[in-house]
Amino acid sequence: MNAGREVRHPVGVSLSGGVAGPDALRALVDVALLAMDAGIGARGGPLPSGGPAGVAAEVARVLGSGAAGPVPAARGAASAGPGPGTLPDIGVGDFAALRELSALLAWGSADPADPRCAGHLHCPPLAVAVAADLIASALNPSLDSWDQAPVAVALEAEVVAALAGLVGFPPGGAGGTITTGGTESNLMGLLLARDALGPGVGRRRILCSQAAHFSIRRCAGHLGLGEDAVVTVPTDAEHRMDPHALAAAVGRVRAGNDRIAAIVATAGTTDLGAIDPLPAIAAVARAAGAWLHVDAAYGGGALFSNRLTPLLTGLEGAHSVGLDLHKLGWQPIAAGVFLVRDAALLGPLAQRAAYLNPDDDQRAGYVSLLGNSPRTTRRADVFKIAVTLRALGRAGLGELVDRCHDLARHAAEAIRADPHLELSAEPVLTTVVFRYLRRGHDPDDPVDRAEADRVNAALRRRLLHEGRAVIGRTELGDEPGAVRLKLTLVNPDTTGADLGALLAAVVEAGRAESATPG
Amino acid sequence: MNAGREVRHPVGVSLSGGVAGPDALRALVDVALLAMDAGIGARGGPLPSGGPAGVAAEVARVLGSGAAGPVPAARGAASAGPGPGTLPDIGVGDFAALRELSALLAWGSADPADPRCAGHLHCPPLAVAVAADLIASALNPSLDSWDQAPVAVALEAEVVAALAGLVGFPPGGAGGTITTGGTESNLMGLLLARDALGPGVGRRRILCSQAAHFSIRRCAGHLGLGEDAVVTVPTDAEHRMDPHALAAAVGRVRAGNDRIAAIVATAGTTDLGAIDPLPAIAAVARAAGAWLHVDAAYGGGALFSNRLTPLLTGLEGAHSVGLDLHKLGWQPIAAGVFLVRDAALLGPLAQRAAYLNPDDDQRAGYVSLLGNSPRTTRRADVFKIAVTLRALGRAGLGELVDRCHDLARHAAEAIRADPHLELSAEPVLTTVVFRYLRRGHDPDDPVDRAEADRVNAALRRRLLHEGRAVIGRTELGDEPGAVRLKLTLVNPDTTGADLGALLAAVVEAGRAESATPG
Repeated sequence: MNAGREVRHPVGVSLSGGVAGPDALRALVDVALLAMDAGIGARGGPLPSGGPAGVAAEVARVLGSGAAGPVPAARGAASAGPGPGTLPDIGVGDFAALRELSALLAWGSADPADPRCAGHLHCPPLAVAVAADLIASALNPSLDSWDQAPVAVALEAEVVAALAGLVGFPPGGAGGTITTGGTESNLMGLLLARDALGPGVGRRRILCSQAAHFSIRRCAGHLGLGEDAVVTVPTDAEHRMDPHALAAAVGRVRAGNDRIAAIVATAGTTDLGAIDPLPAIAAVARAAGAWLHVDAAYGGGALFSNRLTPLLTGLEGAHSVGLDLHKLGWQPIAAGVFLVRDAALLGPLAQRAAYLNPDDDQRAGYVSLLGNSPRTTRRADVFKIAVTLRALGRAGLGELVDRCHDLARHAAEAIRADPHLELSAEPVLTTVVFRYLRRGHDPDDPVDRAEADRVNAALRRRLLHEGRAVIGRTELGDEPGAVRLKLTLVNPDTTGADLGALLAAVVEAGRAESATPG
Repeated sequence: MNAGREVRHPVGVSLSGGVAGPDALRALVDVALLAMDAGIGARGGPLPSGGPAGVAAEVARVLGSGAAGPVPAARGAASAGPGPGTLPDIGVGDFAALRELSALLAWGSADPADPRCAGHLHCPPLAVAVAADLIASALNPSLDSWDQAPVAVALEAEVVAALAGLVGFPPGGAGGTITTGGTESNLMGLLLARDALGPGVGRRRILCSQAAHFSIRRCAGHLGLGEDAVVTVPTDAEHRMDPHALAAAVGRVRAGNDRIAAIVATAGTTDLGAIDPLPAIAAVARAAGAWLHVDAAYGGGALFSNRLTPLLTGLEGAHSVGLDLHKLGWQPIAAGVFLVRDAALLGPLAQRAAYLNPDDDQRAGYVSLLGNSPRTTRRADVFKIAVTLRALGRAGLGELVDRCHDLARHAAEAIRADPHLELSAEPVLTTVVFRYLRRGHDPDDPVDRAEADRVNAALRRRLLHEGRAVIGRTELGDEPGAVRLKLTLVNPDTTGADLGALLAAVVEAGRAESATPG
């Protein structure tokens, strides 16, 4: 017990909090930002060139596994030759590690702030949100008890109330939480719906459109309902759930003596941005007495825009809604939001733990948010959101949404005007689905179709490998297996000229791949 | 479509990435750190004084709901009188929002870097990890596809391999992912175990000790097994699962024609740090053909310490392990780690999505980590971990673990030496459970016992309300309902003198509460 008696601290540790925290951070952040700058410069484009093998070689070189690499990400850094690897016995020190790996990450990122990075709902974060997130990281509040996060707990309640108001839920009654994203929000909606249904005979079914996100099926599996509990409802020509088909599906489920755990509507499909007809679906759900969850992970951002808000009419008829502010909200990941129209609907998540939220502490006002989330320890992702909402306001965020919407319409026109490109559908939000087709392509010829699939997949990989562009890729329900390309336009600083250059690069890569035998 | 034809950008947006990102961040981070500094100064202790009502009033004042507050968190900031609230129509601007709310959060945090903040497994992050996390936030890689995170995907594989090696899993074969924490890790372990079991007759049971974390039961509910699927096994005098009792429980489950989905061992209970006898439990699991998941969320940090590593002997016998580097790893939340001894065990999470990981892209090396996690969009929490492991090395982190272990032993001795305090158990890791007892307390007298519970709960709230200390609180299995206090010592900069002052404050508050009729 001698060691216990004398508590010696030979070396001070640089912590991010406390009175010394801000100074310690300032010095380290300076180094990290310089290295990030160097890495971005070394990249010189939207993503590193060389493809997976090039990236792997550079990671190995920097981590010191001995591989040689041509990329100057760690120029001027300490490592020369084989280095200490990921978990050395003796560390290389704060500054060296931060310098080497920040340069590596910056070089090796697909940077959503580059206009040529347009593949995914992977937004470039606002600098103000990232700076705010640093403070949340530094102070490290955890939302599972009051005494780990006094102000953060209060801020989450404020932000949830404000966003519930934006959705149109009744003031005062709504509830919710910040989530890791649309998948966790969908899981929560389905979990609450499942548990609200209670015991009974007959299999529990989930109804959603055939264009709904794959996480609906995946979550049904995780929740023990089985992936095959999901019944998919046909869509109309604009890829929206057909409410008549939904009503028919409800009838079939009932006729089969199964039960409806939830109806899931989508407000903004990942590929086309299609928004299901919410008022009609809400009416079917009401008539069926079923829980309505709306996956507005993507489309929810339209609520910031006066122009686009009408698309979400009927959203307020849902029991639960998920929206992702790391999509049309310009937050760093994670910034999912899960909302219920009545906080009492969160009941199945209620949880008491003697060490977190004993009853007498709760009664004394030391409230815990443990019962709002399936997680225990929980980062204050709400903080960056709160700062952003206050900094930009609804109008400021709405302008960013409108800019991206403009970009999508502009891109659709440019695609329509280009004889090498085929537009798959009119944009609804900020995505544009299309493909490259060689002149003379015959859509009825299976050989031509296979060649088009090969060329589109290959031209996308060519652009990735050359470090020139990140273009999305997908399939649509009307022609399963057919490769389509996609621009996901979530960078409000992208210009029309940027879009022109991006589409020109696609056409050029398409020509090059068409000339290459498959 | 005119708006679509002309894409105008009247005002540049400050994004965190791209060539302008580092400069934009530098200016905003400066402001945020100054405000954080001011907020910490205004707090002047481990947490804000005034309790929940004081915090709520200050939040309302800063957000501009009109309430007056005495706290100078926003001194010098723009707001005077009722302000724009959480989601104004017109924002207040980046700098004003960041300044006001960073000061508010810093003032209103329970700061784990303050030695008087010792309530929870809520560690003070290392400044180097927080600076690294800023870079991940700024570049915003998302781990669900290669083309959103080329280097981050590779880094996660490296870090998972290194930590799997630390656990003792065979080189080359192990797999895993970064998680939001122990709860998600437990969910993943139970999900994989459930699905590995496959279809069959008989209820699926989970066996764990009565001291296991509440999330085991909660996850069983979420996974559709039912909370009552959990069979709790008695513990020995040191709060560790009794392997003989486990073997007997296995027999009873089998005799009842139920099936065993998983056995869960705990390596470091939240309150006492008790570590179940892993080799004996692994032997029972092997004999039963059952999946063994080890919840090492807390105790896993012992693997960095030469002194404490022997406590985790047998960990390598698990199918899956969870460890939290936001506990004994000094990371900002979230830094959970989930590991499986064979990557093939992740099979039930496999997922294909046309827009994320089509087969031909996978074959071409553009690998996705989508099938490693239940999430889709996923922040690169691995980055701060990679930087920290490389900066400090195993020895550096081990020294921090040893310091906290020393602190716990020191605190236990001090508690034992104080006539007003009763030590509940010898510390194993870095927690110390105890309580305040007035002189003459008779443990056999129900009135004395009730009074002790009242006083201990109240003295803790008194310290919180006065902003003087964050002490933990819990119950132990041997006396359910009895209020115990807890020091969770995860600040390696805390000194013996700090501990003395903290315990003196507890005794003083206990005396004050004893003098106050309940």
